[in-house]
Amino acid sequence: MKLVLLRHGESKWNQENRFTGWTDVDLSETGENEAREAGRLLKAEGFDFDRCYTSYLKRAIHTLNLALEEMDREWLPVVKSWKLNERHYGGLQGLNKSETSIRYGEEQVKIWRRSFDVQPPALDPADSRNPALQEQYRGIEQSQLPLTESLKETIARTVPYFEQEIRPHMQEGERILITAHGNSLRALMMAFEGLTPKEIMEVNLPTGIPLVYEFDADFQVVRKAYLGDPALIEEKMQKVANQGKAQKE
Amino acid sequence: MKLVLLRHGESKWNQENRFTGWTDVDLSETGENEAREAGRLLKAEGFDFDRCYTSYLKRAIHTLNLALEEMDREWLPVVKSWKLNERHYGGLQGLNKSETSIRYGEEQVKIWRRSFDVQPPALDPADSRNPALQEQYRGIEQSQLPLTESLKETIARTVPYFEQEIRPHMQEGERILITAHGNSLRALMMAFEGLTPKEIMEVNLPTGIPLVYEFDADFQVVRKAYLGDPALIEEKMQKVANQGKAQKE
Repeated sequence: MKLVLLRHGESKWNQENRFTGWTDVDLSETGENEAREAGRLLKAEGFDFDRCYTSYLKRAIHTLNLALEEMDREWLPVVKSWKLNERHYGGLQGLNKSETSIRYGEEQVKIWRRSFDVQPPALDPADSRNPALQEQYRGIEQSQLPLTESLKETIARTVPYFEQEIRPHMQEGERILITAHGNSLRALMMAFEGLTPKEIMEVNLPTGIPLVYEFDADFQVVRKAYLGDPALIEEKMQKVANQGKAQKE
Repeated sequence: MKLVLLRHGESKWNQENRFTGWTDVDLSETGENEAREAGRLLKAEGFDFDRCYTSYLKRAIHTLNLALEEMDREWLPVVKSWKLNERHYGGLQGLNKSETSIRYGEEQVKIWRRSFDVQPPALDPADSRNPALQEQYRGIEQSQLPLTESLKETIARTVPYFEQEIRPHMQEGERILITAHGNSLRALMMAFEGLTPKEIMEVNLPTGIPLVYEFDADFQVVRKAYLGDPALIEEKMQKVANQGKAQKE
């Protein structure tokens, strides 16, 4: 069984180095190009899919649309779920990461970004950023919607969604593409590979690079590979790792 | 119960006045603008939706994507079905409508375009345009896929799809947007309004203009209205009516 994970291309706030979370920011021009390039690469490497999944956020939806356009596969079924959304960053959403580092210290920011079970400050329920107050989440029971999340809590919605909604299709032989976010995809990687909280903290998922998993019949990972130029992949991983530092490198 | 029908914006082949059918031609720049304008209009008039439907063809998919982008509703569920595809135009697909008129006569072309049960010449099963030979339709049983269609045959797939897949959601209170094609939407209009074959022949559905239907509990039409500027709508209807003539007007 094969599965491809694709992190959305650079967004306008990635560019500005701000905490995005559930803020519905669009792709930058660079991000659109990354998405198209991912589609061209998947096509050139002979990949094809039967079903695609993405989040409720436009940077992921647009990445998927652009990749599918390059693959000539826009007619494929696409399922959108808020359970594949980025980790909710609570009160940090909108703050510049470098400024936050100067204010709270680089270590605190690394803990918020990379720790397993520490939540950023929660939103006030009256804050207009509260998902329960947004049209986008009107169909979802309010008690399910977060005001902030640790990675642990992101996993608690992402992994059961995968197990219940996506994995059964894979076991019926479908080839699946999931286009989502740094943390919702790291949640899946942690589950697939049985990583510890310490190990997942060091994983940097590059933007716009298809990550291919192959599983055996017992759903054990037998192969894992990024598609594309290894030097570019390494460069992109470093870029993600450096985003929490006080100075952009 | 409310339902909005939206015919895709101008395609690259509408521009060239060619028979398109199931040929997967993209929108022209004008068509992209029409799609965005339809989205802006729906938003300005206070329309909102719970679920959207479109065909397997990119001119309809892109129209829906662009309209939803303008409405800030890209997170809505979208269902794609080949049963909402344009009427299959058989061997006419790819021919210029004016050239076809000169060759076969304007009356014959009007019959092919506007008659109820006359099929254009069928494709040879070995023709690469046969849907059964295309990746896009690989999931569909070959016996269901056409080599040509009359409007009657288009209705025979479109209306049951509506009855089985869309109408039950409307009866549960969902607000539905269908973005599709001149003939697949005329098929639905004929069913909703109980039009005769002669009456449907005279219906010209303008591109990119939302058409709003309201139904009572017995699914009888109680109101029908195009959204937008009446002069523009009339101009667009005339343009559609004139496409079969030997000279573009």
